[in-house]
Amino acid sequence: MKKFLDEDFMLNSHSATVLYHEYAEKMPIIDFHNHLEPREIYEDKQFSDISELWLGGDHYKWRLMRAFGIPEEQVTGNAAPYDKFLAYARMIPYTIGNPVFHWTHLELARYFGITDILSEKTAARIYAECNEMLKSAEFSVRNLLSRMNVKALCTTDDPTSDLKYHLAMRDEGFSIKVLPTFRPERAMAIEKSDFVDYISKLATSAGMTKIETITDLENALLKRIEFFAAVGCRISDHSLDAELFSEASPEKANLVLQKALRGESLSSNERRSYKGYLLSFLGKAYYDHGLIMQLHIGAIRNNSQRMYELLGADKGYDSMDDFNYAAQLSGLLNELDLADKMPYSIMYCLNGKENDMLATMIANFQGGGVKGKLQLGSAWWFLDHKRGMFNQMEAFANNGLIATFAGMVTDSRSFLSFPRHEYFRRTLCDFLGGLIDRGEYPADYEFVGSIVQDICYNNINKMMFKPKK
Amino acid sequence: MKKFLDEDFMLNSHSATVLYHEYAEKMPIIDFHNHLEPREIYEDKQFSDISELWLGGDHYKWRLMRAFGIPEEQVTGNAAPYDKFLAYARMIPYTIGNPVFHWTHLELARYFGITDILSEKTAARIYAECNEMLKSAEFSVRNLLSRMNVKALCTTDDPTSDLKYHLAMRDEGFSIKVLPTFRPERAMAIEKSDFVDYISKLATSAGMTKIETITDLENALLKRIEFFAAVGCRISDHSLDAELFSEASPEKANLVLQKALRGESLSSNERRSYKGYLLSFLGKAYYDHGLIMQLHIGAIRNNSQRMYELLGADKGYDSMDDFNYAAQLSGLLNELDLADKMPYSIMYCLNGKENDMLATMIANFQGGGVKGKLQLGSAWWFLDHKRGMFNQMEAFANNGLIATFAGMVTDSRSFLSFPRHEYFRRTLCDFLGGLIDRGEYPADYEFVGSIVQDICYNNINKMMFKPKK
Amino acid sequence: MKKFLDEDFMLNSHSATVLYHEYAEKMPIIDFHNHLEPREIYEDKQFSDISELWLGGDHYKWRLMRAFGIPEEQVTGNAAPYDKFLAYARMIPYTIGNPVFHWTHLELARYFGITDILSEKTAARIYAECNEMLKSAEFSVRNLLSRMNVKALCTTDDPTSDLKYHLAMRDEGFSIKVLPTFRPERAMAIEKSDFVDYISKLATSAGMTKIETITDLENALLKRIEFFAAVGCRISDHSLDAELFSEASPEKANLVLQKALRGESLSSNERRSYKGYLLSFLGKAYYDHGLIMQLHIGAIRNNSQRMYELLGADKGYDSMDDFNYAAQLSGLLNELDLADKMPYSIMYCLNGKENDMLATMIANFQGGGVKGKLQLGSAWWFLDHKRGMFNQMEAFANNGLIATFAGMVTDSRSFLSFPRHEYFRRTLCDFLGGLIDRGEYPADYEFVGSIVQDICYNNINKMMFKPKK
Repeated sequence: MKKFLDEDFMLNSHSATVLYHEYAEKMPIIDFHNHLEPREIYEDKQFSDISELWLGGDHYKWRLMRAFGIPEEQVTGNAAPYDKFLAYARMIPYTIGNPVFHWTHLELARYFGITDILSEKTAARIYAECNEMLKSAEFSVRNLLSRMNVKALCTTDDPTSDLKYHLAMRDEGFSIKVLPTFRPERAMAIEKSDFVDYISKLATSAGMTKIETITDLENALLKRIEFFAAVGCRISDHSLDAELFSEASPEKANLVLQKALRGESLSSNERRSYKGYLLSFLGKAYYDHGLIMQLHIGAIRNNSQRMYELLGADKGYDSMDDFNYAAQLSGLLNELDLADKMPYSIMYCLNGKENDMLATMIANFQGGGVKGKLQLGSAWWFLDHKRGMFNQMEAFANNGLIATFAGMVTDSRSFLSFPRHEYFRRTLCDFLGGLIDRGEYPADYEFVGSIVQDICYNNINKMMFKPKK
Repeated sequence: MKKFLDEDFMLNSHSATVLYHEYAEKMPIIDFHNHLEPREIYEDKQFSDISELWLGGDHYKWRLMRAFGIPEEQVTGNAAPYDKFLAYARMIPYTIGNPVFHWTHLELARYFGITDILSEKTAARIYAECNEMLKSAEFSVRNLLSRMNVKALCTTDDPTSDLKYHLAMRDEGFSIKVLPTFRPERAMAIEKSDFVDYISKLATSAGMTKIETITDLENALLKRIEFFAAVGCRISDHSLDAELFSEASPEKANLVLQKALRGESLSSNERRSYKGYLLSFLGKAYYDHGLIMQLHIGAIRNNSQRMYELLGADKGYDSMDDFNYAAQLSGLLNELDLADKMPYSIMYCLNGKENDMLATMIANFQGGGVKGKLQLGSAWWFLDHKRGMFNQMEAFANNGLIATFAGMVTDSRSFLSFPRHEYFRRTLCDFLGGLIDRGEYPADYEFVGSIVQDICYNNINKMMFKPKK
Repeated sequence: MKKFLDEDFMLNSHSATVLYHEYAEKMPIIDFHNHLEPREIYEDKQFSDISELWLGGDHYKWRLMRAFGIPEEQVTGNAAPYDKFLAYARMIPYTIGNPVFHWTHLELARYFGITDILSEKTAARIYAECNEMLKSAEFSVRNLLSRMNVKALCTTDDPTSDLKYHLAMRDEGFSIKVLPTFRPERAMAIEKSDFVDYISKLATSAGMTKIETITDLENALLKRIEFFAAVGCRISDHSLDAELFSEASPEKANLVLQKALRGESLSSNERRSYKGYLLSFLGKAYYDHGLIMQLHIGAIRNNSQRMYELLGADKGYDSMDDFNYAAQLSGLLNELDLADKMPYSIMYCLNGKENDMLATMIANFQGGGVKGKLQLGSAWWFLDHKRGMFNQMEAFANNGLIATFAGMVTDSRSFLSFPRHEYFRRTLCDFLGGLIDRGEYPADYEFVGSIVQDICYNNINKMMFKPKK
């Protein structure tokens, strides 16, 4: 019987321990998709309260607290920070089997050196100890990142952003690369009430007086891609729902855009045409500018209209959708392929039932002499736990070459979530080590160790900074 | 190598054995969803033949017998009881990997003390021994329930039922609570040929002369909910198919109802509007009356029209459907949430691919300071086996708080199926014990044991009998 | 820790080793679905180059090579055979977790006696050794089959085929039964540009001057079924996509056929009606002629239009689709059942999320006193790996009687792929042996061994050659 969170945590075979401790553990991190605030990194923010740091913006935790019967006052409301922390601490022992139990204790151990189990009994002491440590300069945001051996990270940014903090950090020569990600979500979201305003804002950011046609829109987006690329952007990001793609001519897309700009309502088919057209256009543009295309597929957002009106977006009211999309995705990728402009691509599904479909779909468009050009993205959001990661790895390996895998991202809003890379690496070593221990692969640790290191760091490093065209 | 069905059956780690034997084994049972006949409990029926008891109504067994090539004569036909039993016994060794193999031997062991393997060779002796024992008063229906430590059970009842047996048992002070479940299936089934007749019957049961409008229908159902609640009903039940929900005004629902009452045929959209409207109305009514809402989602019924015409419903011709329903279910739950009338809810999926979606969907509507208000229901029907239960537990734990889980139901028509609670508990302890043994949770048996006991009994006991509004 | 590919490869329990070595290992093979060339068997072809044999037609390997960044020149292009082999060998160590790693080394070991790991380092030697051995008569196609203990195999044939090689082999009394499979794909593919030409070709093959109506088409197909049956055909095959079935009268189907014959374009509903009607017609014809019906469901083909135009079909650009089809399939099977003409049927899904649905759907139509009449087909194509096979077995066992399972097929275009039967048998023994070792089934090896042998050979042998009507 293993002790909780010992040095071989999550490593269930001899080979897994060898691979983790001798190969994975020390590798640096490129966290190529997260939602950190560039301003907070630039200003090297110092948090003063673990309650703020942990509970100020983490919808994973909020969802569990609500399910535990904790009143909203102590979740996102005005309760005192310690009251929130105590409510959270009381719940934690009940999160058995949930990744939040592991994340919480990994974060306490790796950042604060605390190995006690968080609970009502330990809450006061842990709260005081963490807050005391947070005062030290070692716990500034930049030092937290350095401590985790982060070499580069990619924030998530709107095309209209001036990227001033990214520029400032580049200019000051900050040792960690803090790069923007081009995420044109609002330009895609033609159904949103603020679409027209946004398009106007986008025009301004691109130095144009207005955007009246699809060609104007394309030009504006291209200008912003160029600007982002000039600031060091290497990657884009899209969140796709059931209206993912349908083939559309520029004329068709233009007509839909006109309707939207006039404030008219659109049919599902019209939205799909617009989004499909624009996504295809952008995919080719990413290829031209050497940007990686990330597609996050399958969330259903703001399910509780009541809470959306009270609290806004990203407050823990999103979940997995279950729509089918093989044919739509095939259509999109085929358009890029026909134009011979398939960018490096990483596709994440939010519903695990699509892992295998997605892994096999990707394989339809590999080629052109580029290794690992299309990727099954790491287990995302509601799948970001041991089982979800294991299933993603099996799907990638069974249907393709996991050796080419670009690896883990935190996708997080928290500066304390980088131990999730450790969690991923332990799972990866458990997966590959299990193959060796069961005699399903030869025990060549040096070679398998090199694959582990590629997945931890080398693959994404090459993909981002030394891509093959 | 473990012996079949020894005391550590299904318990694959040391921690699992501790949790099961020290915490789970002795807990009482609340079987809050089944299809037992209240009359048979009231009359304390004594079965005289294991063949009748086992094979008289169990479509799980019938489906296997058909697949084994046993003629229908010996399945649901007029063959002699022992011939049916012998045919079943011959098949049993071939059910390797099927839950029926385990259920059969658990039932022989726990009720009859028989530990032999059922087969052609042992059939005659086991048949004789069982039938001999069935004669004893210990094997009356009430004693079978008491022997399994059942404290309460919920049968499944039509809104028009007079609940006379439930009333009689309440009045006589029977030690086991036998409670009705409000299942308005026929009021929802607007497409069925007997819908108009049923509506008329419902009016009568509600003391109304007729139901002519949606408001009449609502009033009739409310009256029956009030009556059921007065008799001790704590829970409702719905079986939902692909036409699950669409938003509809009372006017729209009323128009569809009018058409149906005139005998006109309805479009799929019309049916969806009617069902969605009525389900939303009922959900709010359940909230008002403190009833739990159970949703069973995803069966496709009566697939063989030929056999339906020969034998009728529930004869083993139903199976898993595969439709998607995240968006529809979100719409339904959002309506209840907007009205701030979300009842305690338990949602079961019949297709395991939806476990994670459903677990994450539920989490969108937790809140209001109530612990475990929305629940992923235990593995249901075709998922009611070790793998199905394990997957449901993983989905619940990974996406929420399994510590709040309301636990197991037999969902059975048989008085001998209560060892399925033992089967569930062993699987639960194996799941949680595995986490401890692998070092994924601290070895605090007292605490995890209390979670086990909550899931076995305490959670559903509170939810049914001491709910928080 | 187990050694790679030792004698207990894939066997993770004592019981698994007993079942495999004492029961499974020596059983003969009936490979009842593959894509081998009958001419090559008839002519007893002798391959001279392992590169041609391995890489000449294997899209599994091609997909991996593309993902590894190997230029198309060395995949399907004009590179020298050894250059292709070397490129493949370089990649192989990186296929960790992919079935191709296992297949490659099983084939080297079982046919060539080579137990080295294929890699850049060993490529030249292994290439030379294999090519040397290929020269020997032992490596003729017929000897390769005999060496694997193949008793019968079914190729895949168009209804217009004259089956001359099958006839010739029958006439010469070749010891292995080489039987045709009736695969009327082109008669179903009403949307294809060559449909009209094909229908004309079909008429000719049936000795008719032309096919002008649906009745003509039926008659032509019946004639070809009769011819195929006369040559020894025991099995049919269909590949079904999202347009699987809708109920249609002969009149409706005829109208759609007329439109297609006039070259008019068809709606999705029209195609579904035609295909559903014809499939239902053929299913009944298979019943009448004692042919097994195979349905392969869920591929999405030729995703890359660019590569389809360059290379044609079956070049590695197909993948899993994700559409739902429970209701459609139920409709099809119900039609056969209503006519009381349900043939022996084997249904394969390409997307593992459908395993359980399909297993439960099949159970709706078992009956008539025939054992194992409807079958969940073995893990197919992208599921043909350890996990895919294991999941298929669990779904079959949990929802039905795995003891009746018809077992494995290679579904391959390669004469070297027969060790996949060994791979399947090891997985089967691991699955059943695991049940015994964990105490979930009694340790009656003789009986479970007989089930293993039934699944390896006896079940399909009876189903094909001694069916019960």
